[in-house]
Amino acid sequence: MKTHRFQPFAYQLNLGSHPPVLEIEDGDTVITTTVDNAGRDQTDREITPPGNPQTGPFSIRGARPGDALAVRFERITPNRPIGRTRSRIAAHVLDAEYLEAAGRSRGPAEAGEEQWLDWEIDTDRWTATLSSPAFPSGRLSLPLDPMVGCFGTAPPKGQAIAATTAGPYGGNMDYRGFRAGTTVYLPVFAEGALLHLGDVHALQGDGEIVGTGIEVSAEVEFTVRLIRDRSLSWPRARDRQGIMTVGNARPLDQALQEATTEMVRWLVELGLEEEQAHILLGQCVRYEVGNVFDPAYTMVCRLDGSLLQEIGLELPAEV
Amino acid sequence: MKTHRFQPFAYQLNLGSHPPVLEIEDGDTVITTTVDNAGRDQTDREITPPGNPQTGPFSIRGARPGDALAVRFERITPNRPIGRTRSRIAAHVLDAEYLEAAGRSRGPAEAGEEQWLDWEIDTDRWTATLSSPAFPSGRLSLPLDPMVGCFGTAPPKGQAIAATTAGPYGGNMDYRGFRAGTTVYLPVFAEGALLHLGDVHALQGDGEIVGTGIEVSAEVEFTVRLIRDRSLSWPRARDRQGIMTVGNARPLDQALQEATTEMVRWLVELGLEEEQAHILLGQCVRYEVGNVFDPAYTMVCRLDGSLLQEIGLELPAEV
Amino acid sequence: MKTHRFQPFAYQLNLGSHPPVLEIEDGDTVITTTVDNAGRDQTDREITPPGNPQTGPFSIRGARPGDALAVRFERITPNRPIGRTRSRIAAHVLDAEYLEAAGRSRGPAEAGEEQWLDWEIDTDRWTATLSSPAFPSGRLSLPLDPMVGCFGTAPPKGQAIAATTAGPYGGNMDYRGFRAGTTVYLPVFAEGALLHLGDVHALQGDGEIVGTGIEVSAEVEFTVRLIRDRSLSWPRARDRQGIMTVGNARPLDQALQEATTEMVRWLVELGLEEEQAHILLGQCVRYEVGNVFDPAYTMVCRLDGSLLQEIGLELPAEV
Amino acid sequence: MKTHRFQPFAYQLNLGSHPPVLEIEDGDTVITTTVDNAGRDQTDREITPPGNPQTGPFSIRGARPGDALAVRFERITPNRPIGRTRSRIAAHVLDAEYLEAAGRSRGPAEAGEEQWLDWEIDTDRWTATLSSPAFPSGRLSLPLDPMVGCFGTAPPKGQAIAATTAGPYGGNMDYRGFRAGTTVYLPVFAEGALLHLGDVHALQGDGEIVGTGIEVSAEVEFTVRLIRDRSLSWPRARDRQGIMTVGNARPLDQALQEATTEMVRWLVELGLEEEQAHILLGQCVRYEVGNVFDPAYTMVCRLDGSLLQEIGLELPAEV
Repeated sequence: MKTHRFQPFAYQLNLGSHPPVLEIEDGDTVITTTVDNAGRDQTDREITPPGNPQTGPFSIRGARPGDALAVRFERITPNRPIGRTRSRIAAHVLDAEYLEAAGRSRGPAEAGEEQWLDWEIDTDRWTATLSSPAFPSGRLSLPLDPMVGCFGTAPPKGQAIAATTAGPYGGNMDYRGFRAGTTVYLPVFAEGALLHLGDVHALQGDGEIVGTGIEVSAEVEFTVRLIRDRSLSWPRARDRQGIMTVGNARPLDQALQEATTEMVRWLVELGLEEEQAHILLGQCVRYEVGNVFDPAYTMVCRLDGSLLQEIGLELPAEV
Repeated sequence: MKTHRFQPFAYQLNLGSHPPVLEIEDGDTVITTTVDNAGRDQTDREITPPGNPQTGPFSIRGARPGDALAVRFERITPNRPIGRTRSRIAAHVLDAEYLEAAGRSRGPAEAGEEQWLDWEIDTDRWTATLSSPAFPSGRLSLPLDPMVGCFGTAPPKGQAIAATTAGPYGGNMDYRGFRAGTTVYLPVFAEGALLHLGDVHALQGDGEIVGTGIEVSAEVEFTVRLIRDRSLSWPRARDRQGIMTVGNARPLDQALQEATTEMVRWLVELGLEEEQAHILLGQCVRYEVGNVFDPAYTMVCRLDGSLLQEIGLELPAEV
Repeated sequence: MKTHRFQPFAYQLNLGSHPPVLEIEDGDTVITTTVDNAGRDQTDREITPPGNPQTGPFSIRGARPGDALAVRFERITPNRPIGRTRSRIAAHVLDAEYLEAAGRSRGPAEAGEEQWLDWEIDTDRWTATLSSPAFPSGRLSLPLDPMVGCFGTAPPKGQAIAATTAGPYGGNMDYRGFRAGTTVYLPVFAEGALLHLGDVHALQGDGEIVGTGIEVSAEVEFTVRLIRDRSLSWPRARDRQGIMTVGNARPLDQALQEATTEMVRWLVELGLEEEQAHILLGQCVRYEVGNVFDPAYTMVCRLDGSLLQEIGLELPAEV
Repeated sequence: MKTHRFQPFAYQLNLGSHPPVLEIEDGDTVITTTVDNAGRDQTDREITPPGNPQTGPFSIRGARPGDALAVRFERITPNRPIGRTRSRIAAHVLDAEYLEAAGRSRGPAEAGEEQWLDWEIDTDRWTATLSSPAFPSGRLSLPLDPMVGCFGTAPPKGQAIAATTAGPYGGNMDYRGFRAGTTVYLPVFAEGALLHLGDVHALQGDGEIVGTGIEVSAEVEFTVRLIRDRSLSWPRARDRQGIMTVGNARPLDQALQEATTEMVRWLVELGLEEEQAHILLGQCVRYEVGNVFDPAYTMVCRLDGSLLQEIGLELPAEV
């Protein structure tokens, strides 16, 4: 149960079976830093190429395919006073005919490149603030809610997959529920599991519909636990509110199907009959949208912890 | 500003330009009843064929195409002690390969028709309870959260569309946010608007994934207001928490696109520049899933009312 | 076996249980005319509002829910020398980011309304010709291949559904295989079946991606046969090449699923074991895209007639 | 312009920036072999693990990111007398409710694992034959139409992506039009382009709906040409019939959007105004379905070569 302070010296643009930067043990904690989506660090200098550069991979000693890796985010803290967002909802998130009509009415003067917007990140007051005279109020100030946008284990079959998409191994899920206090369970496909993480957002709307959260570099502290012979089809998670399963796919319908099916599997593993799992979810399930921007969309299926208690199920105390 | 007590004498299985059962005025309130999805009334007798039979249509005097109709749900009260649900997640909401594998492992004995489950509705304790030894606890008891599953105006072009699907006119959206205290704004496509409503659920999970909420007959009280020359592309709504827009389409991606686009339009109508609407939604939007069971899926785009205040916008005090 | 010459006096913009304009018998032939999508007749005069106005409905004596209606298109002939198309691929058929970029680069001068293009229809030379200096050749001349864009029976449950979309009852499928010589089998949901037809195209590309074929008024001759107690889930068809099934839904994946499933059902009805139907389709199926423009997309599943012979199946000689 | 005979000594399960097995020059021809999807060679022995093992990668000297690689398939010949298929349409290609109902009616006896079927491949008579008493004819015999199921360049950003899916770089497109005589143009993302190929089918239905074509090992002869500074967004191709563009994505709608957009780009590059490209495609485009089985679906957009002539465009004589 050691705590490692790890200063990254290189970053990965793919999640894959790269040589690990550090080997840790089941139960260990790591305190490290992440650069932002554009490869900029806490001094706002671009120290590595853009594309959600990942810190890691961290190898967990003894992890083998067929195990699960529990990752608990202990702390996610922006470590610089500036965050950045895009300013325009992605074309594929809007009605196509609306988009075409809007496009037509823009003159050449406005046809320039999209601006990136600078937000002031204040970790004392715990706010992100955009100053802009175009808002009637002159500014938009929002409470911080830091989250890790992209993290995951090495994908199966020796693949190396860009940190801009997602799959059963995790990846760029861009879900605001992956915040401090949340434990995520990831399938292990490679020896050592090989955990990558990066792309922290100071906060983010559902769907990451402008293609970014408020992108920041950050300090991240997490603890890992190895769960033997627990084969997951998709990421699972728990937080103070309850339990979650995650589907990463297009269209959003399929992401929802995967997440829902994984929740049924989980409830059956916890001891429910399949029919009771269906009945319970039917009247109690909640869905949250991770991202609808990346090549794979992310849908999260949630069930309140109080409901598990209500029906007499208990969650094992992992991590 | 009259209050009408209306006892239905017939029901519609389509939302369409049917002869109105009652003409009311802008500002009037109606207290009426709805049968459940199966056509059963407060005595649990099937008095009309199943398929989300609709009470109405109510004609609002003076409503014309191009207007909007605001419908505020004042009260939605189950009026019988029994509610019913299906027990199985719809095939198209699960991973297809999982479904196939599960199907194969069922023997002929279990191959029978799906059961409907009876829930006890207690409006004093405000709970719905399923007694079932198959749950470790022997029962599942949930707080009531009554909602109107299907309501809408007459669709455009003289169409009559089954009360099991949805569109720009509303319809079978099966969204748990359409509860007492919510005001919904619907486009008017026909003279008199012609409001239909039915399919009340005592409560429902997101997505209506078993194909039902807890289906009940109910007493419903609502107030209408006519908003002149307010052309909506999709339903909008507001509640104590904030404002909402609704997209009804398949796949879920398209429902999300329609809802998001309608929210951009609304924010621009409220006085924001389009770019500021994008920026605001980018970091603050929330999505909620109405249904993923019906022929058209329903996605709801939400923005907190406090954010509108934060940026200096004011909502007009309609209804 | 009578031949009726029917001159329409009114048109329907919905497919529904409207009063029939003519009652015919099983085996009868009808020669009638259709206006174009915009309500223009053979003199190019708008005689009825636009939106794929339908000729009919024709009632087939004795047709009952649960029967199937076979409609053989004997002849489809444009009856005026002018056809029209839109000039721009629909926004939702293009990559959204491409569209946005293209939209931005258009200046205000080109931001006007979309043009309709006039094509010269020559039924002697059997060509449609667009003269345009913008083509290097100065013109585009194509062989006619007339088809009925929209036709169907009255939908179930007394619905009336706009002639711009499609469903199990047929409707606006916009498939170029619905040409003279093709027999289409439609489910009957209402007494008399109530056949509507309109929206003839002189020819059309797959997908109807500009939102139109070459839109013309036409003379159409068709023969109907009633098939008792043949419950279809989706339209089926046959032509000289083989047999077809049709799915109408979004996304295109679902249309393909419906069409494929209906083909499996048909092959099983023809005498194949289900597994053999799967094997045969697996290596021999062909898909054709009807439309990807309308609210419901159309996918056609095809199997060559020679393959049915090869495996020893025979098609009943209907119509 | 050399011809290389290359005997593979290892296979790749990912398309990626692997060390090349052979370096060839612009204009060279390669004669090599491929194992089948299951890693079986011409003696039907499993010599490498299953999952569409790829022969290669072949490095093309001087190829750089931003170039295009033209690959002409000269000859594709099954090199063993046995081919194999699965026997069941994939669950996600059928209507989910149908699947569930079918699943329920299967007893435990039939609940076993799916069978693989053996087909006799006769390259003299050019047929593939399945003998099965379950067909009324006792057999199903089909003409060979060999195609390369999976081939592509190394994907961008150093990724290594499983040979069971597809993207802009090509991959597992499973399209029957990729047969001898077809030239495919692929984007180059890595030095040397790094061409992989495998997964030959003796023939295949549209969509690869049972998850396989008739899987065979094969001898493949192909010629490569390097096209400098020709940036493609998606694969393109030409054959004797005309030109093609390819989209690989889910849902099928998006694959169609990508393919259509790439065809517009190509026509504009060939000299058409964008509007004329739209008009031409609107009435003349044809779509063909590659696969609807793999994680990315494949849609092919086609235009007849005769139409290019008709409007006065000429294709450059590449390869």
